[in-house]
Parts: sequence; C-alpha cells; structure tokens
Amino acid sequence: MLKVAVVGASGYTGVELIRILHNHPEVLVTSVTSEQSAGKRLSDVFPSLRNRYDILLESLVPEKIAEKADIIFTALPHKAAMQVVPTFLATGKKVIDLSADYRLKSADEYEAWYEPHLNPELLVEAVYGLPEVRRAEIAAARLIANPGCYPTSIILGLMPLLKKKLIDPSSIISDSKSGVSGAGRGAKVDTLFCEVNEGFKAYGVGGVHRHIPEIEQEISLLAGEKTAITFTPHLVPMDRGILSTLYATPVASVSAADIHRLYEEHYDGEAFVRVLKQGEFPSTAFVRGSNFCDIGLAVDSRSGRIIIVSALDNLVKGASGQAVQNMNIICGFPETMGLDLIPHYP
Amino acid sequence: MLKVAVVGASGYTGVELIRILHNHPEVLVTSVTSEQSAGKRLSDVFPSLRNRYDILLESLVPEKIAEKADIIFTALPHKAAMQVVPTFLATGKKVIDLSADYRLKSADEYEAWYEPHLNPELLVEAVYGLPEVRRAEIAAARLIANPGCYPTSIILGLMPLLKKKLIDPSSIISDSKSGVSGAGRGAKVDTLFCEVNEGFKAYGVGGVHRHIPEIEQEISLLAGEKTAITFTPHLVPMDRGILSTLYATPVASVSAADIHRLYEEHYDGEAFVRVLKQGEFPSTAFVRGSNFCDIGLAVDSRSGRIIIVSALDNLVKGASGQAVQNMNIICGFPETMGLDLIPHYP
Amino acid sequence: MLKVAVVGASGYTGVELIRILHNHPEVLVTSVTSEQSAGKRLSDVFPSLRNRYDILLESLVPEKIAEKADIIFTALPHKAAMQVVPTFLATGKKVIDLSADYRLKSADEYEAWYEPHLNPELLVEAVYGLPEVRRAEIAAARLIANPGCYPTSIILGLMPLLKKKLIDPSSIISDSKSGVSGAGRGAKVDTLFCEVNEGFKAYGVGGVHRHIPEIEQEISLLAGEKTAITFTPHLVPMDRGILSTLYATPVASVSAADIHRLYEEHYDGEAFVRVLKQGEFPSTAFVRGSNFCDIGLAVDSRSGRIIIVSALDNLVKGASGQAVQNMNIICGFPETMGLDLIPHYP
Amino acid sequence: MLKVAVVGASGYTGVELIRILHNHPEVLVTSVTSEQSAGKRLSDVFPSLRNRYDILLESLVPEKIAEKADIIFTALPHKAAMQVVPTFLATGKKVIDLSADYRLKSADEYEAWYEPHLNPELLVEAVYGLPEVRRAEIAAARLIANPGCYPTSIILGLMPLLKKKLIDPSSIISDSKSGVSGAGRGAKVDTLFCEVNEGFKAYGVGGVHRHIPEIEQEISLLAGEKTAITFTPHLVPMDRGILSTLYATPVASVSAADIHRLYEEHYDGEAFVRVLKQGEFPSTAFVRGSNFCDIGLAVDSRSGRIIIVSALDNLVKGASGQAVQNMNIICGFPETMGLDLIPHYP
Repeated sequence: MLKVAVVGASGYTGVELIRILHNHPEVLVTSVTSEQSAGKRLSDVFPSLRNRYDILLESLVPEKIAEKADIIFTALPHKAAMQVVPTFLATGKKVIDLSADYRLKSADEYEAWYEPHLNPELLVEAVYGLPEVRRAEIAAARLIANPGCYPTSIILGLMPLLKKKLIDPSSIISDSKSGVSGAGRGAKVDTLFCEVNEGFKAYGVGGVHRHIPEIEQEISLLAGEKTAITFTPHLVPMDRGILSTLYATPVASVSAADIHRLYEEHYDGEAFVRVLKQGEFPSTAFVRGSNFCDIGLAVDSRSGRIIIVSALDNLVKGASGQAVQNMNIICGFPETMGLDLIPHYP
Repeated sequence: MLKVAVVGASGYTGVELIRILHNHPEVLVTSVTSEQSAGKRLSDVFPSLRNRYDILLESLVPEKIAEKADIIFTALPHKAAMQVVPTFLATGKKVIDLSADYRLKSADEYEAWYEPHLNPELLVEAVYGLPEVRRAEIAAARLIANPGCYPTSIILGLMPLLKKKLIDPSSIISDSKSGVSGAGRGAKVDTLFCEVNEGFKAYGVGGVHRHIPEIEQEISLLAGEKTAITFTPHLVPMDRGILSTLYATPVASVSAADIHRLYEEHYDGEAFVRVLKQGEFPSTAFVRGSNFCDIGLAVDSRSGRIIIVSALDNLVKGASGQAVQNMNIICGFPETMGLDLIPHYP
Repeated sequence: MLKVAVVGASGYTGVELIRILHNHPEVLVTSVTSEQSAGKRLSDVFPSLRNRYDILLESLVPEKIAEKADIIFTALPHKAAMQVVPTFLATGKKVIDLSADYRLKSADEYEAWYEPHLNPELLVEAVYGLPEVRRAEIAAARLIANPGCYPTSIILGLMPLLKKKLIDPSSIISDSKSGVSGAGRGAKVDTLFCEVNEGFKAYGVGGVHRHIPEIEQEISLLAGEKTAITFTPHLVPMDRGILSTLYATPVASVSAADIHRLYEEHYDGEAFVRVLKQGEFPSTAFVRGSNFCDIGLAVDSRSGRIIIVSALDNLVKGASGQAVQNMNIICGFPETMGLDLIPHYP
Repeated sequence: MLKVAVVGASGYTGVELIRILHNHPEVLVTSVTSEQSAGKRLSDVFPSLRNRYDILLESLVPEKIAEKADIIFTALPHKAAMQVVPTFLATGKKVIDLSADYRLKSADEYEAWYEPHLNPELLVEAVYGLPEVRRAEIAAARLIANPGCYPTSIILGLMPLLKKKLIDPSSIISDSKSGVSGAGRGAKVDTLFCEVNEGFKAYGVGGVHRHIPEIEQEISLLAGEKTAITFTPHLVPMDRGILSTLYATPVASVSAADIHRLYEEHYDGEAFVRVLKQGEFPSTAFVRGSNFCDIGLAVDSRSGRIIIVSALDNLVKGASGQAVQNMNIICGFPETMGLDLIPHYP
C-alpha cells in the first residue's frame, strides 16, 4: 500500500482528495494536517467522513509528515505551499502540490502576479501536471504542480487546435464560469449563501485573474509561439463545476465536422476526456463528482469562429482528481485506478 | 384609470405583468386570459396572487377583451400572438406584444427563423420597443414589439460604442447567461428542478438561437452598417436574471476611462440604465425584481479588447417591466410610474 | 413626510426596510447607520440600491440620528439595541426595535436566555408588535418590540385555536424551517454557500433556541394559561421564507371544516393573513417579498391531531414589513400603506 | 460476475443504480430497459454515462431480460412492477423491486391506497428489504420489496425505541422533508425549476401520503402492537436528501444520555447507520451520495418529548443503495461491497 499524506485537509480540495483516495485500492492515508483545526478529528471538520476518517488532524511538521508518507499532497494556499515543499523533497518524498506555487516556469511572472518566490530553482524542475499534455514527464517527476481548475478546462479545450496551428493566437477568448467551491472554505461575506444564491456575476474582468499567466504559459507552449488570452471568470450559484466557452478565429475556414474529427483523434484513448457528438454540448451536471472533462464543438455559421465548450468538476479534474491521476502515473498504477467514477446525476 | 388586459396571463411574464401593474397608480387590470386555465381564478394558477387577483381567467375572444381594455398586453407564444393582434388593432386598441412576432422588420427573416408571417404588413408599422433607443417612435405607436430578454441586455450593452462606430462590427461576441424562467412554464423534462439545479450548460451554440436576427437587426441599425454577432446562450441555475458578457475589438486603441465616460454621457438621464463605476461589474442579484439594466466596462490589458458586462432581470427589463415602460410612454405617464422598484436583495 | 432613520442598515433586515420604505408615499429615509461601513455609501454596501440610495452610512450617534428623524427603526443585534434605545426615547422619538431586546416581559427570562438587561424598566412599557394580536396597544406605544420571524409564524398559526381554548396546551409542537437570510450577513463558515446549498438540517434541537421564551410568552397570553412548545428549527437552502408546521391535540374532536371556519372568521378583515381553502397548503414561494402570512389547515385522519401550516417571508412579515406595518399603525396611516406588495413569483 | 438487469433505467433511481453498480467488483449490468426511450443509448438519456454506458435501452420483454440476468432490479412505477415481477420469478430469477407494489403485507391495504393488487399471493412471500431490521429473511428471499425513502428514514429513526417499548405509540409524529428527485423525472409543472427553487412547502398534509401504510406496518411490527403515525412530507429545493424530524412521548422519563446509549448499542456493527454524538444533528449534506443514514437525538427539556432526527440520501439508502445492499445480502457478498461510498461534500 502506498502511504500518502494530505497536507491542508480542512479545505474543499482536501476533503475531496480523501473522498477519492478512499476508493483507491492501493492507497492508505496516513496523516492529515490543518493548522486551524489541529487536534480535531477530520470527521469533526467534515461530518461527511464520520466513522470513516476519525483520524486526528495534525499541525504541519514537515519532517513528521514525511516520515509516514511515500507521497505528499499539499493542498495549501499559495505561499504556504512553497514554505514546506522543499523540506518534503529533501526527505526524498514526492510532492503533488495543488497550489499555484510551482505552476509558472518564470520566477518573474510568479512575482508579478503573486510575490517573490521562495525557491525559484524548483520552478524549473516542477512538472505542470496535466497528464493529457505531458504524461511522460509526470511519470519521472518528483514535484508536480497540479494545474488550476480554469486552466485545465481551457488548455484541454484548445490543445488540438493549438498543436495544429489552426487558430489565430490573438483571437482567443475564454468566457469561463465556476461553481462556488472554487472560492474555498474561508469565512467571507462574498461567498455567503445569500450573496451568491439566485445571482450570477462576472469578476476579475479585464485580464487581472491570477490564472492568466498559467494559461498563457501552457497555450504558448502548445502553440509554439507567444499566445495571449482574454479571460473572464464568472460565478455560478452551484457548488461544483467549471464550464469554459472558448472562442477562436481559424486561420483558414474549417467545418464543424473537421474540428470534430480533429478532437476525436487527438483525444482517442484518453480515459477522462469525452469529445461529445456534433450538436451536443456539455453541462457541468454531467461531470459532477467525476474526473471527466467533456468537450463540445461548433463553428459559428455567421462569423466562421470556432466555439469550444469544455466542462469539468473543479474539485475533481480541476483539482483533487487530477492530483490522483498524477499520483497514478508517478506510481505506475493504471491511470484510472480509483478514478473510474460515474458522475452523480442528479 | 387606464384599463388593460393581459392576454396569456398564466405564464411567467403574465404573472410578472400583474405584479408590476398592481403598483401602477393609473392602471386597472380588467381581464386576463389563458386557454389552458380558462375558468380558473388567476390566483388558483398563481397562489401568490391570492386575495388580490381572484378574477377569472377567460378564454381569449379578442373582441370581448378589447371591449374592456384601452391597452392590451399580449404575452403569448410566437404565432399565437400574430393570430390575434390584428383583431385588437382593428378595434382601435393599442397592443404591446411580448412575443417575437413583430420584432423583425423583414418577413423573410421571420420566415427563415420561425415560419411564414400571417400579417407581414404589420411588421413595417410595429415599433421595436426599446425606449432607450427610440422613445419618440414608441410614443406614437399603436403596436409595440416588446424586445427579447437577451437582445435588451446586448443592445443596451453595445449601443454607445455602436453609435460612435468605435468597434469593429465583425468582432462582436455575446456570451450570455440566463436564469430558468426564460424557458417558460411549460412542463418539460429539460427544465425540471433536478435537471437544472447544480448544473451550468451552453445551448444553441453556433449561431442558431432565434434571438440572433433581432439582435443583428437592431445593432446594424445602431451601427449604420450590417453587423453580425456571435451569440452563445447559457442556462444558470437560478429563477431570474440575464447577464451578457460582450467582447468587441475597438477600431482604435481606447482606455477604460474613455469608454466609461462615453457610457456615462450616453445614458445620462436614463432612469433604468445604471453605468457602474470603473472596476465594478454587475450581478443579476442586484437588479432582481427591478427594471434596471446595470452595465460594467473594462478594457482587456493584454489584447485591447473592450469587455462590457450587462445585467437585467429577464422578467422585468427583459419583458414585463419594459412592457410597462412602453405603456407609460404611449400613455404619457412618467416613464418610471409603477416601475420605481428597488431590487430584492437578498 | 415622516422622517425615519434606519439604525443598522448594513444587514439584511436593514436593506429590506429601505426597499419597503422606498415605496411608502409618506416616508423619507433621513439617515442610515452602520458601524462597520460608516463613511461608505449605502449603495456601496448594497449595489442593488445604486442611483437610489447613495446616501452615506453614518456611525451611530443617537442624538444626531434622533434630530433628523420622527421614528427610528433599530435593526441592530441584541444588546446593541438596548444600549441606544433609551437615548432615542429620551429625545421624544418613537422606536421600532427589530432586535430581541424588548420582546420579553420578564427581565429574568431575558437574562436566562441572553444576558442581564440594561434597562429592564422598558420591558414593561414596550409593546410586542404583532398587529393581529394587539393593534390598539401598538397605536399608543412609543417603543415597539418587533416580533421574531419564527414567533410570528407560530403565533399567527395558533392564535385562533388558543383563544378558543380548543387545544391541549401541552401538546404543541412547531417544526419550523427557515431560509438562510435569517442567519444574517456576518461572515461565518456555517452560512457559506457550499455549506448550505444542497443540504437540509435541523439545529437548536431540544428546546434551546432563543425564540422559545418569546413564543411561550405570547401563546401563554393568548391561551390564558402557561403554555409550552416543542420547537425545532431547520435550515432550508433558500434565501427567504419561513414555514412552520404546527401540531396540536384538540381537547375535543373537531373537523377540518370547523377549524377552517374558525380561522376564516378570526382573520376576517386582516389584510396580511390569508387563510387558504381547505386542502390547500402554503409555500414560502407564494409569499416571497410580501407581507403576507399564509395559513393552511388539516386534521390528521388517523390521530385527530390538528396540523397548521403557516408561511411568511422572514424579512418582510417576519421583520421589516411587520415593522412598517407597526409604523403605519403608530402614525395613523392605512395599515397597508407601502405594504401592498404582490409576492415575487417566480 | 453476477449479471444484473435494471428494468426502468431511465428514471433517477435507475441511473443511480447504474452509478453504484459500476463500482461493484462482482457485478455486470447486462441489460437496461425503458419503454419511452427504447432504442436510444442509456448515455443519450443520461449524458453523465457517456463512454461508460453506451448500451442500448430495450423495451421490456421479461423473458428476454431474465435470460441475460441473475438478479433483476425493477425500478418501475407502481402497478407496472406487479405486471412483470411474476414473470421474472417464474424464470427462477430473483427480483429486487424498488416500487411500492410488494411492500404491504395486506392486499386490502394495497387496494385502499393504490388499486387492486394483481398478484396478492406474492405479498406474503415478498420480504420488506430493510437490512437493519430483517437481514436473515432477506438473505433467503427471492423477491425483495425495497423500502420507500421516507419509510427508511422513519423506521431506522424509531426502531430502537419501538423495540424497547419506550414510547407511547399514539404520540409519534414524523415531520419529513425531501429533495426533489423523490418526485421522479416526469415532465410536470410542479417540479419545474422555477416552481420549486427558492420555495419550501408541505404537501400531502393530514394523513394522505401513500407511504403511511408502509410506515405503520413496519413500526407496528417493531412495537409489537398497532402503531399509527402523523406524517407530514415537505419539499426542499435541493436534488437529493431526506431528513425526518421525529417526535415521540416516552412512557417514562428518559435522559438524552440514556437514549443515546440505546441507539449506539442498537446500531453497533451496522455499517450504514451512524449514531451521532450527543448534541450533534444530521444534515442531508453529510450523507449525499452515500448509503449512510445519520441519526441525532435529543430530549426536549420543556416537555420531555424525545426528538430524533434522521437523514439519508433518498436515491441511495432510500432507494438504489439499499437495493444493492439487499443484493449483497442475497448473494452472500460483503454487505458494504460497492457501497463504501464517501459522501460528496460539498
């Protein structure tokens, strides 16, 4: 059995990791940490886990955690992650980090969007853990930067077109919508039930959301040239789910059938990407609780623009499920092990 | 007192008309019709109206309805509207039609998107009732085509830029999101609670939604040239509200401050359009139950694209509130009479 | 014009007061206060009020507020209210207090459930402001204790039976359910969207909720004898609404028709209590945004138990609407002035 | 591998069965049926199942289905079930019926609440499949009547008290609340999103809900005497979950600690019943997607009444999960096989 630690287990990605790992036949969760709830049982923080995870939450002492684990999942806020990841690596353990701390290759970019990086040398080594993009590198990594939820939906939605250089790189727009769990479990007025329910809003409009450098880094690599994005996130009154509606202008006229064939071929064999039939479009409801990313495709009859709609569960393929997928690759387990989850419907 | 009839009172726009007209000091609702519920009390169909609107729903006999009313609101499905509107007009009464039947100027376009029009001669006469665009024509009209909900959010969002010819007409994208009441009160699996709740989806992707010809007709008129739109509607798990996120490429570089000043000046004096401060963006929650259309503005720092976010309540400014606003204009009442509604929050 | 102040305007009952008062033809809101948001515009705190209530929030200086107002609504947390109410009264102004501070007649009871009372002498004078129970006393009062939301639903639901002594006072159970706005606008994990949405729970089980002494005081007065209640509150994933399902054993066998007649007669002439037809039961959806309390009645065929279901909007009849109703009575305005609101549906 | 058929796979209990069975290591779903969707793929009806259950839905020909299956789950409406179950049994196959058709022991009672029974002789043989009540009988059965969702929550909530004869059988009240999926997937106005969302209502008030005879049959058996219930169901605006708040008067004074000990002992060793700590109460959110029934306990300090709160997922422990639990018992699999599901949170 693989021993794993979940560092930062009192947030939504933490509890989702536990839920998924519980069904993994080769994994044993050996320790869970939380600064604010240390000393409580995990099931006191998340009563959903009663009688299953009554283990105590520890305060984070990296060396102690590392002793008991083969792989460490860090589900901490940014900055907190980079304060402890080097210690985990120094003990010889592998780390799958769910924060933003190791996603950017450039320390300058990290500083521009966040703050000065504490261990920029690790940025070079860390592997951006999107299995559908770089499975082999992930298998060999000791530090995985698990992708953000919005970026996963956007990169998977654009990859086939980008790699074939079929779209004008200056034309890309992602109008993205997220459920509320993406905002975390902190006590804030903005995410109170009555502030969110029965409303829909845009936020971070105009190119200011911190996921932008991560998206641009990855789509530029795929396109082989500097590629920008206009990205507008929105908040949907639901717990889980991200849906990105992507717009791009093709460099030459294409049909919906062409695009569809391209995506089917590109994602052939991928267990977690479902390319929908022509004329079908995804709903977050049909991926809820699963590791799927569903993709629907159209060509706008009036402008020739390509429209791609991608949907995933932000806590699964957008966070904890993808983290387990990375773990499976690193450990040589079948990639779907513990992740063959049918979406909850309704 | 102005006597009004609400034809098609058993749908969501019908009951919303009643709610708004109830607070109008100059209006008396003299008859309400419904084919499927004729003979029942209106308050049996909508128990919210108990003790206030216990009047009987009639089957629609246009002459009978016209006798008792000065103005007739037709809140019928398309096709059903054009079957009765000519009769109402023939009796000398004015009609405010909430269906799509008189919104398009071209009978060919109507036929292409719907079916052959039964009285195409009225298409020329009907006035597309967006007060912020053509107040004077509305005042003189006897047939108002009350605008669609999506189109209202898009046209108001784009008007200042279009009139000044500041944007490339081929660059316009509207990524729009609607609450579920827009789908009406018919019994369909697609709009059951469990099918909609906790999900978010795109529909009508690729230029196939019937609001497109209406939008393009109006933005072309404003721009003074043929202007197309890429329009993607989405369904939000909430009762009310539409939010459109609009993207357009400026013909010359502009700043957010420039755009903001333009909108403030353009909408100066409009009672129901609120241009938000720079850096603020609308939520449907802040217009719920009111006749406001809120507009926020940004310029994307990376691409120079202009992003406009507009929000309204689809049942009020997107339907019944706008219909009452048109009635006020036609009747010479103050435009805000009965419509000075503070949004419900929360 | 009556000048009113809203003290504690940055909470949900505060903004709802503003919404209702805005439609009151005889009222002008002259000042609004908030400690945490003093110096901000009210519309910055509640963007729903943009362009309508851009007035500045003041820090609470009772003398300054009293100078500008004829009537003061205090929408403060308990304890904060009793710290300022005496000052308002001393200036000769009338106060309608929406907190719990003046609802209990007994200072001992107040201390047992809350803490020592700061001005117990006012408990005797304060009038528990349920117009359907004591309209005349309200008219003559200078201090109104505006009832709690749960108690209003329960007292109105039981009053006709209690006054006729038709039920066993030891048999009463209220299984009550509330929307989330009742929990206020404070930043707490418990009322985050993701904690509340898609869940239903009981809380305060076993006779520990602070509304109990208030309920028992009032139902005892109505029954003319000490009357206890078993009260279980629950949290519903919706913004607004309270529904109480009340169970009581009759002292002698009664039919549903008897009960129904009793309630119809009892509430005959009441503008805001709607006794539903036999076989009909209320939904909070049909009172949303209005000052109605809807009541449905049944007799359980198997046990003879009487079941009363009452529903109201916790922010309107359960708080701010009732406060305005009290204001109307005190000021000699028609009781429905500004309150003839049709519920929002949907 | 056990071959199973899901008859009536196009409803919510059908798709939930598929979701659960997919994770069962010993089961293969060999056929799925639907009259209205025969010829379509199961994944066309439930896109959540894309790429996993693209098998064709068949029209129901019992002999054909029985040929391919060892066990048949019938997830049909009442009446439809009893039309086919005898044929399945005649082929020697075992049946787990999720309808109401075999839950009542008395054909007269069935007729009184539903209609004349088509095969009353099977009522005697059928085993009411609540494992926590009669595990041994289930193991030996060839026809399981899978319990209703409300009854499961009520029977599990009352069982320890009933068996010990600690409560007055005439005092029992169940105030129960259900999510919307319990109403099925049929196209009805009543369960449209806009009719249900943001509202809470009682229905079937006064002893008329069809689950009553089933509840009374089972609690009478447990109590060893005829025991009635006052049962009021309510509709909660959420997809899944049932919470029952149960009230009962003890025959002699008991403490909360006594009751708690009783429940802990009674349910000791049960994998799916979680007795909460004193002072804790369940939420449907903490059992969502799992086979758990959570139970919280209190004694009302004012009346001595016992209050039991039980919560489960109506589609899992209240339907499909319990059906799989019964299948495990019948087949000799570990009772938790395929059912060790951590609740989805959030």
